[in-house]
Amino acid sequence: MQTKTRVVVWGEFRHEKKNPRVAGIYPGGMHEAIAGPLRKEASLDVSTAWLDQDGHGLGGDILEKTDVLIWWGHMAHGDVADEVVARVKSRVLEGMGLIVLHSGHYAKIFKALMGTTCSLKWRESTDKERIWNIAPHHPITRGLGDYFEIPAEEMYGEPFGIPEPDELIFISWFTGGEVFRSGATWQRGNGRVFYFRPGHETYPTYHQAEVQKVISNGVFWARPTVRIPDACPNSPALEPLPADPFAASRPIEGFRKEGASPISAKIRPAGTEGCRF
Amino acid sequence: MQTKTRVVVWGEFRHEKKNPRVAGIYPGGMHEAIAGPLRKEASLDVSTAWLDQDGHGLGGDILEKTDVLIWWGHMAHGDVADEVVARVKSRVLEGMGLIVLHSGHYAKIFKALMGTTCSLKWRESTDKERIWNIAPHHPITRGLGDYFEIPAEEMYGEPFGIPEPDELIFISWFTGGEVFRSGATWQRGNGRVFYFRPGHETYPTYHQAEVQKVISNGVFWARPTVRIPDACPNSPALEPLPADPFAASRPIEGFRKEGASPISAKIRPAGTEGCRF
Amino acid sequence: MQTKTRVVVWGEFRHEKKNPRVAGIYPGGMHEAIAGPLRKEASLDVSTAWLDQDGHGLGGDILEKTDVLIWWGHMAHGDVADEVVARVKSRVLEGMGLIVLHSGHYAKIFKALMGTTCSLKWRESTDKERIWNIAPHHPITRGLGDYFEIPAEEMYGEPFGIPEPDELIFISWFTGGEVFRSGATWQRGNGRVFYFRPGHETYPTYHQAEVQKVISNGVFWARPTVRIPDACPNSPALEPLPADPFAASRPIEGFRKEGASPISAKIRPAGTEGCRF
Amino acid sequence: MQTKTRVVVWGEFRHEKKNPRVAGIYPGGMHEAIAGPLRKEASLDVSTAWLDQDGHGLGGDILEKTDVLIWWGHMAHGDVADEVVARVKSRVLEGMGLIVLHSGHYAKIFKALMGTTCSLKWRESTDKERIWNIAPHHPITRGLGDYFEIPAEEMYGEPFGIPEPDELIFISWFTGGEVFRSGATWQRGNGRVFYFRPGHETYPTYHQAEVQKVISNGVFWARPTVRIPDACPNSPALEPLPADPFAASRPIEGFRKEGASPISAKIRPAGTEGCRF
Repeated sequence: MQTKTRVVVWGEFRHEKKNPRVAGIYPGGMHEAIAGPLRKEASLDVSTAWLDQDGHGLGGDILEKTDVLIWWGHMAHGDVADEVVARVKSRVLEGMGLIVLHSGHYAKIFKALMGTTCSLKWRESTDKERIWNIAPHHPITRGLGDYFEIPAEEMYGEPFGIPEPDELIFISWFTGGEVFRSGATWQRGNGRVFYFRPGHETYPTYHQAEVQKVISNGVFWARPTVRIPDACPNSPALEPLPADPFAASRPIEGFRKEGASPISAKIRPAGTEGCRF
Repeated sequence: MQTKTRVVVWGEFRHEKKNPRVAGIYPGGMHEAIAGPLRKEASLDVSTAWLDQDGHGLGGDILEKTDVLIWWGHMAHGDVADEVVARVKSRVLEGMGLIVLHSGHYAKIFKALMGTTCSLKWRESTDKERIWNIAPHHPITRGLGDYFEIPAEEMYGEPFGIPEPDELIFISWFTGGEVFRSGATWQRGNGRVFYFRPGHETYPTYHQAEVQKVISNGVFWARPTVRIPDACPNSPALEPLPADPFAASRPIEGFRKEGASPISAKIRPAGTEGCRF
Repeated sequence: MQTKTRVVVWGEFRHEKKNPRVAGIYPGGMHEAIAGPLRKEASLDVSTAWLDQDGHGLGGDILEKTDVLIWWGHMAHGDVADEVVARVKSRVLEGMGLIVLHSGHYAKIFKALMGTTCSLKWRESTDKERIWNIAPHHPITRGLGDYFEIPAEEMYGEPFGIPEPDELIFISWFTGGEVFRSGATWQRGNGRVFYFRPGHETYPTYHQAEVQKVISNGVFWARPTVRIPDACPNSPALEPLPADPFAASRPIEGFRKEGASPISAKIRPAGTEGCRF
Repeated sequence: MQTKTRVVVWGEFRHEKKNPRVAGIYPGGMHEAIAGPLRKEASLDVSTAWLDQDGHGLGGDILEKTDVLIWWGHMAHGDVADEVVARVKSRVLEGMGLIVLHSGHYAKIFKALMGTTCSLKWRESTDKERIWNIAPHHPITRGLGDYFEIPAEEMYGEPFGIPEPDELIFISWFTGGEVFRSGATWQRGNGRVFYFRPGHETYPTYHQAEVQKVISNGVFWARPTVRIPDACPNSPALEPLPADPFAASRPIEGFRKEGASPISAKIRPAGTEGCRF
């Protein structure tokens, strides 16, 4: 019986190969720095995947066996195959947690789940970031105080092009004068989504204990409780209905289908099924 | 000076050509039935568009000149070009109202803005629909009472695969025993989105006064107040920062670009711009 | 070490003494019928309290030792002492779960936490209630299907005078033609609040397995993760500020106090403290 | 026919009489400084009221004739009569806009509508406040840019003990290192509530154009569209119900009443009415 929560940390893993400064900070790759602290949790089963693997490391039945996916990407969002994005999105909606980190705000998967631009202001400089905990009751802030600081980080500033979060968890203060909604959650279908801002590749952010704590809390919070495939059933009535003079011409169950065109209400395609029409 | 609110009613306009029953109910097309009552409003400038027109009737500068777009589609969602969907989505996020009707719950544009399956239960039969007004304070329910009834309509049932609405406006009761969140709003970027359930092609729903009233109220509510192009600026600090030992290797403004790969932080592409990276 | 979740089921316990029909359905009192199934959960420590006990059964350190409070009241909301309501409210805001059942929609504690009328339509008759699960991902609906039915119940109808819920969990369909938001949650301070509609005293609703399951799920969901006393600290700056020419006349920490009037900014009351001013 | 929006600016008007510095900044009282710019709007009918007037200046039919109430209080929240608070709350819920300014976060009326502590951090010093506009689409931010600055203001810091706002409008950055949700809205019944942070009595904040603009925008946004008295009707069924064997013992319309105790289901009090039971 599977009892551990299965976590996949997905990293772009390109900056580390091209920029010696990044490689110096994250010699095993950023995904390994993120995965390391999670591997110490006995109830988690942690693996990693990255862009330049086959199927971006998310092929076969890997997504099937994932409870929470952590996503870090930046310079190569455009290289992520649309087909993989569609599978990840579908998996989240059926019931999988997704934690999107930092520049992942512009990842295809995050934009697809948000439906908005996900744009923001930014500056790579010497800002200190002070992250205020505005939801002390929330499982994601467990063990944190009123705030914690990151000595230097890329600045992200408002307005941030996201839908109003279900829960706003963190707001950042930056030395240079900006603020940012640095932690926020959204329910999407049966999956929970948590966006967490810190983690530019040129700063050692993922080595910091508070950041690791938030990610770990996020994983425990994002574990799904169900997995439910998408369905759009033609449903018989539960209560008596008046007689239907048009019954003979009504569609039958399963008639709707993606792109199924042309269909008139009198055509009843045999064996059609599925919801994506 | 442009002062009228410019409304475009978009209809799929295929059922009407294939199914004599639909043609009998909507001889001018469903889009015309929806547009008719709006044309009586002096402050609205109303036009129509449909799927089989060039560019689906949304080409050229039409979207540029649209304040509120109404969308009805059903059997041919798959025939709507992705490029048009992308332009409509971008226009909504910059600041345009969007009213999605009935089977438009599965339109590409609605699914793209919601980020979810938008799936539901359904049954085309003899159900009466009683639509309860649960937001009597809301501009969309102006002039309505506690509820109104549609004598016969297609049933839509829960669970409805949408993000938690910003505002839930209507809940429907169906004879056959189901309920549905029949009116709901979401802010997406600078645009307001209103989903309104009624309007299956084989029922004369858009000839009903209460339904017309809701759509009209929706148009007035959805008028945008701004139009703001997407931007992701590299922003100089507003307050003094410590000296930056890495300044020489920092990216310059505009360095980020969709799919711009490979880029290291030391490469500063001249003339790069835009936010969709 | 305290490890069990401590649950108190509060019942008004008056109908049972006055109305033989109610006594026949709930011979041990409604609170006992609600508490019974919870007592079978090994991780819960369940007790009961009722209106006509000293301090309504919530005196001494009982609230201090309560993690989740379940509230059923109806005919005697006016008899609940305001002082007890204030203590329960404060306890919720510091971090305690509260589950409000049925006619508790008009309990002082629910109205105080919602800030609204909490009014609704009602009818005590022979309606069947079908409760639709619109949040299949939610811990509160664990183990339930798409819907469940209560053979006869009091009808509650919309509009329901509540703030937009954080999460809408259930919507009810009634034979007589109404709908109702029958399950909804709100975060209030550090406490979680769950309203669940069913349970009129003249129907055997709390003997039904699905209803018991929802309440049990609700208890596990509502367990607090923190307890944080209210505070409004005068906080020293975390970053350098310009010199303050008015420093001598600034208030000192703790100057603000409930009803502390008259105070000018120059008066610094010694030993003042607390936040309720 | 009444066509103007009737605005009442309520001020505590005590600091101005006790503290010469405050009197120097606001010689006519803070309420007059707030009301002044609104009086220039042709479509507004603006008056003022204050604590030490009879009935706090809100007696007689004044609330009946108010569309939007603006509230500034600080040192004397405890002196506001509970009866007046109850009337204002009821008026908001029926349909009246309420704009709560600065230290009004601790006003009885705001706490009663929020249901939470409304507590926060604070510091009266030399902080600059930079208010970021995170909702550029919102009517309340019309005419503002990305941010505006107040040269010196009291600091308010997170966590702020409010329910998750319906819409978060502004986030403040303070020199001393804090952030704050400085503009937020909530729907309460048929009334709109807007909290706006700036305006400590010892700073000339209400003389600043951007602050005046926000308050003016807020008034136009908060105008009610309906006024609906509270009701909890016993509602006859809209669809056929099975026969009711207990019909003779069912309560009649109006049986429920605040504190109406003891009542058994067989007692039908004549002439009872109202919803606050």
